[in-house]
Amino acid sequence: MYIYPKKYDCIVIGGGHAGCEAALICARLKLNTLLITISVDTIGAMSCNPAIGGLAKGHLVKEVDIFGGEMARNIDETGLQFKILNKSKGPAVWSSRAQADMPAYRLRMKHTLEHQDYLDVKQANVEEIVIEDGKIKGVITHIGNEFLCDALIIATGTFLKGKIFIGLNEFHAGRAWEPPADKLSESLAKAGLVIGRLKTGTTPRLDGRTIDFDALEPQMGDDEPIPFSFKTKNFNPPNYPCYLTYTNTKTHEVIRENLDKSPLYSGMIHGIGTRYCPSIEDKVVKFPDRERHQIFLEPQDANSNEIYADGLNTSLDYEVQVKYLRTIKGLEKVEIIRPGYAIEYDFVNPIQLKHTLETKKIRGLFLAGQINGTSGYEEAAAQGMVAGINAAMYLLEKPPFILARDEAYTGVMIDDLVTKGVKEPYRIFTSRAEYRLLLREDNTHLRLAEKSYEYGLIDKVHYEEIQEHIKKVNEAINILKTTYAMPSIDFNKRLESINTKPIKTKVSLSKILARPEINYSLLQTIVPDLPLLNKIQMQQTEIEIKYEGYINLQKQQIEKFKKLESIVIPEDFDYDKVAGLSAEIRTRLKEIMPKTLGQAMRIPGMTPVAIQIISIFIHKKHVQSKPA
Amino acid sequence: MYIYPKKYDCIVIGGGHAGCEAALICARLKLNTLLITISVDTIGAMSCNPAIGGLAKGHLVKEVDIFGGEMARNIDETGLQFKILNKSKGPAVWSSRAQADMPAYRLRMKHTLEHQDYLDVKQANVEEIVIEDGKIKGVITHIGNEFLCDALIIATGTFLKGKIFIGLNEFHAGRAWEPPADKLSESLAKAGLVIGRLKTGTTPRLDGRTIDFDALEPQMGDDEPIPFSFKTKNFNPPNYPCYLTYTNTKTHEVIRENLDKSPLYSGMIHGIGTRYCPSIEDKVVKFPDRERHQIFLEPQDANSNEIYADGLNTSLDYEVQVKYLRTIKGLEKVEIIRPGYAIEYDFVNPIQLKHTLETKKIRGLFLAGQINGTSGYEEAAAQGMVAGINAAMYLLEKPPFILARDEAYTGVMIDDLVTKGVKEPYRIFTSRAEYRLLLREDNTHLRLAEKSYEYGLIDKVHYEEIQEHIKKVNEAINILKTTYAMPSIDFNKRLESINTKPIKTKVSLSKILARPEINYSLLQTIVPDLPLLNKIQMQQTEIEIKYEGYINLQKQQIEKFKKLESIVIPEDFDYDKVAGLSAEIRTRLKEIMPKTLGQAMRIPGMTPVAIQIISIFIHKKHVQSKPA
Ligand SMILES: Cc1cc2nc3c(=O)[nH]c(=O)nc-3n(C[C@H](O)[C@H](O)[C@H](O)COP(=O)(O)OP(=O)(O)OC[C@H]3O[C@@H](n4cnc5c(N)ncnc54)[C@H](O)[C@@H]3O)c2cc1C
Ligand SMILES: Cc1cc2nc3c(=O)[nH]c(=O)nc-3n(C[C@H](O)[C@H](O)[C@H](O)COP(=O)(O)OP(=O)(O)OC[C@H]3O[C@@H](n4cnc5c(N)ncnc54)[C@H](O)[C@@H]3O)c2cc1C
Repeated sequence: MYIYPKKYDCIVIGGGHAGCEAALICARLKLNTLLITISVDTIGAMSCNPAIGGLAKGHLVKEVDIFGGEMARNIDETGLQFKILNKSKGPAVWSSRAQADMPAYRLRMKHTLEHQDYLDVKQANVEEIVIEDGKIKGVITHIGNEFLCDALIIATGTFLKGKIFIGLNEFHAGRAWEPPADKLSESLAKAGLVIGRLKTGTTPRLDGRTIDFDALEPQMGDDEPIPFSFKTKNFNPPNYPCYLTYTNTKTHEVIRENLDKSPLYSGMIHGIGTRYCPSIEDKVVKFPDRERHQIFLEPQDANSNEIYADGLNTSLDYEVQVKYLRTIKGLEKVEIIRPGYAIEYDFVNPIQLKHTLETKKIRGLFLAGQINGTSGYEEAAAQGMVAGINAAMYLLEKPPFILARDEAYTGVMIDDLVTKGVKEPYRIFTSRAEYRLLLREDNTHLRLAEKSYEYGLIDKVHYEEIQEHIKKVNEAINILKTTYAMPSIDFNKRLESINTKPIKTKVSLSKILARPEINYSLLQTIVPDLPLLNKIQMQQTEIEIKYEGYINLQKQQIEKFKKLESIVIPEDFDYDKVAGLSAEIRTRLKEIMPKTLGQAMRIPGMTPVAIQIISIFIHKKHVQSKPA
Repeated sequence: MYIYPKKYDCIVIGGGHAGCEAALICARLKLNTLLITISVDTIGAMSCNPAIGGLAKGHLVKEVDIFGGEMARNIDETGLQFKILNKSKGPAVWSSRAQADMPAYRLRMKHTLEHQDYLDVKQANVEEIVIEDGKIKGVITHIGNEFLCDALIIATGTFLKGKIFIGLNEFHAGRAWEPPADKLSESLAKAGLVIGRLKTGTTPRLDGRTIDFDALEPQMGDDEPIPFSFKTKNFNPPNYPCYLTYTNTKTHEVIRENLDKSPLYSGMIHGIGTRYCPSIEDKVVKFPDRERHQIFLEPQDANSNEIYADGLNTSLDYEVQVKYLRTIKGLEKVEIIRPGYAIEYDFVNPIQLKHTLETKKIRGLFLAGQINGTSGYEEAAAQGMVAGINAAMYLLEKPPFILARDEAYTGVMIDDLVTKGVKEPYRIFTSRAEYRLLLREDNTHLRLAEKSYEYGLIDKVHYEEIQEHIKKVNEAINILKTTYAMPSIDFNKRLESINTKPIKTKVSLSKILARPEINYSLLQTIVPDLPLLNKIQMQQTEIEIKYEGYINLQKQQIEKFKKLESIVIPEDFDYDKVAGLSAEIRTRLKEIMPKTLGQAMRIPGMTPVAIQIISIFIHKKHVQSKPA
């Protein structure tokens, strides 16, 4: 066995979305880092949809950005269309989404890694992890070389024992027809990790020349696009169209008639698929009354004819794919470039992880991305970021980096993962975040800059720029709240001029801004000496004032919750001694061993009564263990 | 079995350099064409060195260009450095070479295919060919779909039963760690083709940040670069440096000490490697007295740090690669990104092919590229072009497209392949071309435009542009030959002013231009009314005049050769009936069944006596078979 002479602080396995962020962040924290990946040509590759962001996913991208990650900058530089989703709803659920130029995205990420100080990149397939005294020691590659490290982050996506299904055909592969990583999975099992099996699927890629786009509705990006990264200035991206079409009853008929040729319905696939991103055959079976499903036809690359058919993820037979596609408006003559397929792969149930994404069993071993049972680039990137920072903190012997549920979507996701575990591929939603009015996309960098700076993840210049921004918004809010308007004829005339009701008593300007029909720039036309703000600052000021009531409510809830969260459950807490707990709840608690009462509360199936019982028991124990 | 409803005229298997040209040309000839390849993301990928062209290879690229291929345009658009090699030698061996931006090259080729009319592209691994009544009928993919066609071009490179070696480790793979194509090879054997085994190797890719470039000699491209394609106008490419370094006795020592860890020397590799592109371990073993070997460090991509180490192709153990690299000046601290490796693969001995690259056994089945035992992108592309045109001619029931040895390097190569067969990977050299003074790079499009136009491979506009060019050069030559200078004092003074001897008698201007120290633009300074020519036209005029003697000699040789070549050997010619042939020569003749006496002459081991015997026999037969 050749032991490589350079010992690394941290090794990251996998150049996917999790691995790239993990490796970059470790290196940016000046730890000697090595990224090992099966092919350096697929670094940053998008396995499935050509898009970054989306509902709640946009939040994750912005969180990765403020904590020193690359995804936001990478899509800002290579995106083909940018859009804020949910603009008709409240600001809590506004989410950024961009279409990606896949090869450009991939190459820029590769180049970023290659130019990162403290980071080496090597092409190899890792087959084994090496553990000594319960601590990670290194990895062994497929050509029998050992690379040593003190911390290891595994981010191998769908490659562990990957098996692909197209109709009744199956073959071993990691993604499309890339080679899988079979042996590493065995090594993880040998190390004591419990391995499970999940599945996901992707849609056919179509030849754009054979699509009748003229018959379809084009969907453009925003006229005034907003970048993902707070670092992006002078944002002027292209605006490529997507197109909307629909399945119809004929499509559904073809699918229904051919379910016997589906590996999902014939019992070949054992892994569990995601409920939230179902295959088209699932949709047809589970919603028999729906007459149509939306299909978005999206570009994959600025110069390519390849079109991604969003909404048609499938493992059906090739013949059936051709047939049902051609029932869809605009696709009557479509040619497939790459067929859709399903992939089944090994994952590690994240219940075996700490909030730092370190495994509970093996010191220094961190897992991030799809290996933890999640699905999605953004989920992977956010975990990569957390694993990267925590590997660094572990190596530097500094306190761990943990994001609370009231701090960030990443905090919500990781808490969900390690607390509830995963039974089906996990993806983020705005509904998973209790405090989503506080955790808005627009204020991500304002909320988190302090913490990022504390951990050395943003530089002083950027930090001060953000502070300046916060100051401006706060000043504006302060002025609005402390400046009163009198019900003078003159002022009421001015109000009338901007189509809003007159006032009858003295009211603060903030009250006027709170009116639905008023926004900051409108108010400014009648109160010209309001502070000058940029677009984003105005938006934030408006939200803080218009939603003040809700925001305060959420802040109170957080306070309450924090109390529960501050009640620590001793590490040696013996649930068997607690009378009154149901057998099921007791088992779950013993499995997860929550650290705080707050975490216990979030375990699925947990009841308020059970929490009360535990709380009393902790209190008793606490009193007992105090010196007399 | 699903039979795809669209039937193609021609299917091409493989998106490498051969497959891309074959598919493009078929489609450009308006035949419905399908390219099937394992991954559409690797279309146009360069498996090894990041360069197009080079000695004799540059000629092939220009030939592909004039016959409607894409390689020349593709490198002109994406090259990083352009250079004419051998400028200090005669014009017969001047060759163009360019460094490539590999991902840019690959993507531009993919986009070109995707936008080509009459061409579909599909991602699949072909496992079987279907034959009916000795004719090709279609192919079957790894997911059990049959695609029908009337002609099939197989261009699968090093993927057939590919097996990779790094030290004593071996694993199945097609290139780097891409999936191999194991089953197709079996299908070809079942169809009656004789399969052999070859090997090739590649060098480690290095992290440019760990190379001390300041200690090395930079090698720039030409200041006035010349494009590959006659279609490229306004050529203004970048000029990235390469760097020169050398192995040394320490390097050789490390290699020699570790030969037991080489799969080549330990007997693991059975395939035969190329003599012309030997591995570094081969060089060290076979040239024990050489104290150093040249290494060129070349960029792979405009924005990447990855550096290709030209000259270090190896299958040695990873440990040994690290060690010997670090003995080399500039590489003392080098980090490897991808290790070097050897690959062993199945090939079809091209002796089983006609000059059209159609197999002799199966009608409509053509083979092109590395599958025929060649090595190199340009060799592959030129074969792809020939196979593509011939598949089209076959489908259109038109005469085959055959390039003679005196017409093109492609002709030389294909004649070598189908006549002599392959025992080790074949690559092109200028020395393989008997008439290399005629087959110069600079006159490629002039020589071949007529033929290209005849086969519908260039459009009228380009054809007329070339005719205009030819006319200008011929006019200039004519004027030079028919204009005489008198030995006047004035003219001799003018000659003196350009540093050349005076004349004593009346001489043609062509005689003066023939002087080594004179070139066209110099002559123009003293004979101002010579026709205005552009740079390339001047160069051609100079060569035609300066090398007239040699050129005429080669033309005479061609005439002689043509006579032999015109003597057709009847298809049913029975060598067993020819007395006086040695058993060995008889066997070879029966194996190859040459079409003409010229071809018979080029069979290795053939003797002039044997040719004479056959010639007499043909003559006799001919006389006998004539009606009395
Ligand atoms: C078919 C398919 C369909 C999908 N559909 C969706 C979808 O509909 N919606 C959605 O949100 N997400 C989808 N995804 C998931 C999304 O692609 C992943 O969640 C995301 O890419 C995961 O990122 P990752 O970094 O964890 O892993 P990946 O992006 O998978 O990257 C893993 C990396 O690890 C490398 N690697 C693996 N094993 C080894 C080893 N042993 N040694 C060295 N390197 C190794 C690989 O080469 C690769 O670079 C799909 C994925 C696939 C494959
Ligand atoms: C390790 C290595 C080292 C090399 N070293 C040198 C060198 O030093 N000098 C030199 O001049 N050349 C070298 N080459 C050779 C050069 O890369 C090839 O000669 C050239 O790329 C051959 O072109 P091709 O089109 O024949 O095949 P390739 O470029 O190999 O392309 C083959 C294509 O066919 C596809 N394919 C294969 N099987 C199937 C199937 N069953 N179904 C569908 N698609 C399939 C593949 O995906 C690929 O796209 C090397 C190659 C390798 C792999």
